[in-house]
Amino acid sequence: MQTTALTFDYELLHTSKKSRARVGRIHTPHGIIDTPGFVAVGTNGALKALDNTVVNDIGLQLMFCNTYHMLLQPGTTVVKNAGGLHKFINRPFPIITDSGGFQVFSLAYGSVANELKGRGTKKNDGSVMKITEEGVLFRSYRDGTKVLLTPETSVLAQKDLGADIIIPFDELPPYHIEKDKLVQSLDRTHRWEERSLNCHLENPQNQAMYAVIHGGIDPDLREKSCRFLTKLAFDGYAIGGSLGKNRQEMYTLLQETMPFIPREKPNHLLGIGDLPSIDMAIPLGIDTFDSSYPTRSARHGILLSYKGDINVTKRIYQNAFVPPDQNCNCLTCKNYTLAYIHHLFKAGELTAMTLATIHNLSFMVQLMRNYREQICADLI
Amino acid sequence: MQTTALTFDYELLHTSKKSRARVGRIHTPHGIIDTPGFVAVGTNGALKALDNTVVNDIGLQLMFCNTYHMLLQPGTTVVKNAGGLHKFINRPFPIITDSGGFQVFSLAYGSVANELKGRGTKKNDGSVMKITEEGVLFRSYRDGTKVLLTPETSVLAQKDLGADIIIPFDELPPYHIEKDKLVQSLDRTHRWEERSLNCHLENPQNQAMYAVIHGGIDPDLREKSCRFLTKLAFDGYAIGGSLGKNRQEMYTLLQETMPFIPREKPNHLLGIGDLPSIDMAIPLGIDTFDSSYPTRSARHGILLSYKGDINVTKRIYQNAFVPPDQNCNCLTCKNYTLAYIHHLFKAGELTAMTLATIHNLSFMVQLMRNYREQICADLI
Repeated sequence: MQTTALTFDYELLHTSKKSRARVGRIHTPHGIIDTPGFVAVGTNGALKALDNTVVNDIGLQLMFCNTYHMLLQPGTTVVKNAGGLHKFINRPFPIITDSGGFQVFSLAYGSVANELKGRGTKKNDGSVMKITEEGVLFRSYRDGTKVLLTPETSVLAQKDLGADIIIPFDELPPYHIEKDKLVQSLDRTHRWEERSLNCHLENPQNQAMYAVIHGGIDPDLREKSCRFLTKLAFDGYAIGGSLGKNRQEMYTLLQETMPFIPREKPNHLLGIGDLPSIDMAIPLGIDTFDSSYPTRSARHGILLSYKGDINVTKRIYQNAFVPPDQNCNCLTCKNYTLAYIHHLFKAGELTAMTLATIHNLSFMVQLMRNYREQICADLI
Repeated sequence: MQTTALTFDYELLHTSKKSRARVGRIHTPHGIIDTPGFVAVGTNGALKALDNTVVNDIGLQLMFCNTYHMLLQPGTTVVKNAGGLHKFINRPFPIITDSGGFQVFSLAYGSVANELKGRGTKKNDGSVMKITEEGVLFRSYRDGTKVLLTPETSVLAQKDLGADIIIPFDELPPYHIEKDKLVQSLDRTHRWEERSLNCHLENPQNQAMYAVIHGGIDPDLREKSCRFLTKLAFDGYAIGGSLGKNRQEMYTLLQETMPFIPREKPNHLLGIGDLPSIDMAIPLGIDTFDSSYPTRSARHGILLSYKGDINVTKRIYQNAFVPPDQNCNCLTCKNYTLAYIHHLFKAGELTAMTLATIHNLSFMVQLMRNYREQICADLI
């Protein structure tokens, strides 16, 4: 059985002679995603401070939208009525949505980052009311209404949204979890993912579904997860769950897990997109990365560059009448100087965030293009 | 004596047979301003939520920047070092700056709007330290340093900024003021404007200077102001000071004042740009209007239209899958629906402000084009 619609396909173009790094193309109903590729996060159907025509001009090939947020505002029915996300947000290029599980369980358990920073494990602000085999009942943070998120409701919501790539419903267990509980969580996640896949297959639409591989930082459970999920008719594999408390743990985890992920399908590393992590993960064979890092850091005045982050709010840029990067062809670098962007941040102008975001996203597009060239030349 | 640089000139194209309305062209070193024309306010060298390449695309011909704000951040020396405002902010088209007096005296006396709303007259938050014949000493709200704003420092700051049109230093007396104090204020403003003009002429640069006609709502004082200022070598005339407590008072005031303003030079109505006021003032012969109304209201979810304001945050737009205006060619109307913009406002996305601002500015550009066509056809 194969869920892949005719328009979804992974094409391997080159595998490095030096590592597991590879260059490929994911074909989708809304065009090609070159891999390795960066996926920006447009939670509510917009990249913060940008309109989607600008995003299209930047050349960002895949955009991430969050089902949890779209479910609560405007509601997936509105998006369906609009003719789907692509039409609603005016994006003719590929979109991926998640299941909503990540956000719901972050509310229940706290995020791994919060957990590690000692902001409390098992934080529960009351919005998650009940977790059962069926799914999760929680209260909308917007209007207090009860929402039941299950494998089926998540997939049907994602059918309404109509993204090119969708994600099955899974549990996000906390980083600090006993082995037996992690095993239980993994088994339930596998049942939920299978239910998600069945619901997906019973409601055919021109979408691909990636499995989410779990198992925390336990290599045996990661292997178990791969073995279970790769037997099912998923179109690709996302690596989710806790990826460790630091980059070294994530490296070890990916090194142990990647050999169990089929090479003939695309894979995705969920929620990771800082530059050192990308640089570490590409030689291990990761195809796509999503992260709000480039856009969020932009809004705080951090401009990405090959020479390291530029904190444009620093006083040393007050008279810097040069673009952020003279070799960058983005709208920001072609038209504005560090001094002007510095001024806009100091003056509290929203435009500062827009210009910084345009540069950082353009940088990511260019960075990934460079990685692809280096892989093709077997330099990575 | 004539201050007009070769590149600054007013060209009268048509005077209505029906009213004092007129169509003209102001030629500046950075291109043409068609009149009647709308001038958007980019206080800190940026229209809020837009970058200047977008503003250029919209076709906005004249942009207002505030000397007071630029003086305190980034400082006019930085702008001078950048090669002037046009280069600093990447705007190849005309720019006008004010003297800074309006902001300083608003701090001292409170704005007319605040005054009329009973938020206190003669509000003084301590930032204005001393008003003398020399000028005004105030504290920077940014870093507490003392700043002396005089006719000469204001003009020299505006020389650093390098706008196409600059404004002499004047006093903004409160709306509620006794006649004798208003007379004293007017006389001092005239002395300040003459000092400003002299400083302007002694430091020649390719800029034009508009006088600011004062006199509050006293028709005799307005006439006196016109008679005094039109004898001096100004390139145009701005109408400033208190314009009355409502539109009717402003109408009366303009009707009485406009006949004393020379027809062979351009004029400008300071700080007024709401649609009914524009509609009222154009038949009286006003050439340009500046206002933050279209941009500020956009950020609050108000979309301008010929059928009246659209409050896009209202629930009725949740499923409105049509552009704000089907006849509008702006980026927002060509690419997005009311439903999407509604969603972005509800989700608190900055992009909502950007899209609304683009539409409202485009609307103003189109509106003024329509007025010019109607005047040329003697319909106004």
